[in-house]
Amino acid sequence: MSYLKQKMLTDSVVVNENVVKVDSFLNHQLDPVVLKEISKEFVEYFKEKEITKIMTIEASGIAPAILVASEFDVPMLFAKKAEPSTMKNDDQYSTDVHSFTKNTTSRVLVSTKYLSPDDKVLIIDDFLANGEAALGLMDLVEQAGGETVGIGICVEKSFQPGRQKLEDKGVDVFSIARIASLANNEISFVEEE
Amino acid sequence: MSYLKQKMLTDSVVVNENVVKVDSFLNHQLDPVVLKEISKEFVEYFKEKEITKIMTIEASGIAPAILVASEFDVPMLFAKKAEPSTMKNDDQYSTDVHSFTKNTTSRVLVSTKYLSPDDKVLIIDDFLANGEAALGLMDLVEQAGGETVGIGICVEKSFQPGRQKLEDKGVDVFSIARIASLANNEISFVEEE
Repeated sequence: MSYLKQKMLTDSVVVNENVVKVDSFLNHQLDPVVLKEISKEFVEYFKEKEITKIMTIEASGIAPAILVASEFDVPMLFAKKAEPSTMKNDDQYSTDVHSFTKNTTSRVLVSTKYLSPDDKVLIIDDFLANGEAALGLMDLVEQAGGETVGIGICVEKSFQPGRQKLEDKGVDVFSIARIASLANNEISFVEEE
Repeated sequence: MSYLKQKMLTDSVVVNENVVKVDSFLNHQLDPVVLKEISKEFVEYFKEKEITKIMTIEASGIAPAILVASEFDVPMLFAKKAEPSTMKNDDQYSTDVHSFTKNTTSRVLVSTKYLSPDDKVLIIDDFLANGEAALGLMDLVEQAGGETVGIGICVEKSFQPGRQKLEDKGVDVFSIARIASLANNEISFVEEE
């Protein structure tokens, strides 16, 4: 069993059937050992993909993304959440990302300078639930004419539709911890093949 | 000359007397080699400080902070910018950080679970200008009864008052690239002793 899954069984808090908190080691306080083990797994899985760039969205994706970028020795690019007052700018690719949790839609953007048609992008994020953040990042890569060659996720809520939406786009999704259910205040992982 | 300073001379863009853009390698697209060299310098400078925790603020401080945390093998904690609707919560330390650039004040917070009176905290951030973000982080550490034992900054605008404000608090500030001036579209660094 991966180190992240072990850590989730001992150190995460199941809040309800839909929410598990991992903020003691993954997305508020970060355990560097957990992060290093996560990045090793991503590198092992995606190493044949000839990746030219790692991409994520601020803020929780940045730590795993920079560690993976270090291993692949390619640049990492993080999409920024636009200030409410930010106007559409010719120098930026932008897209809207809906959050079902917060019931808000926010614009995220990257500079056009840092994505090109030659890019083979690996998207990294901490959570996959409804897939909106990853779809938004894929849209930014598409706007630049580049290719998303994979999506690496730390924690996937497999009982929500995110993975299916991404696979429908034909992209390879690899998640380290796939949660089948959070019922009865317990984490059940999807059984590994 | 440090790798970051060399990179700034070749790859940054001086926008005006007060603004230099480093978003091709430090705070939007990130060059993993630059980040690794930065983290090595922080580790070398602060290695005797018996640090128990690395702390930063989302989003641009996260990448250097996780690399330094990996080297010291201590947890990294990043302060979150509160949603406008977030109420004061007994489980959080919070403080207000003013941005002179944006002329806005935003509340940042950390969970009380992740700071304790035993903590010796090293604060890491990408930029130091007016010092408001670092002062805010120091305030959070103080609220927990912990101690800020150092502040590591990637790029310091030494012609702005941030360093003085932090030194007035008695804390050791180490900046890798100290900019003396951005006049005439040129970066002049503070001369090293």
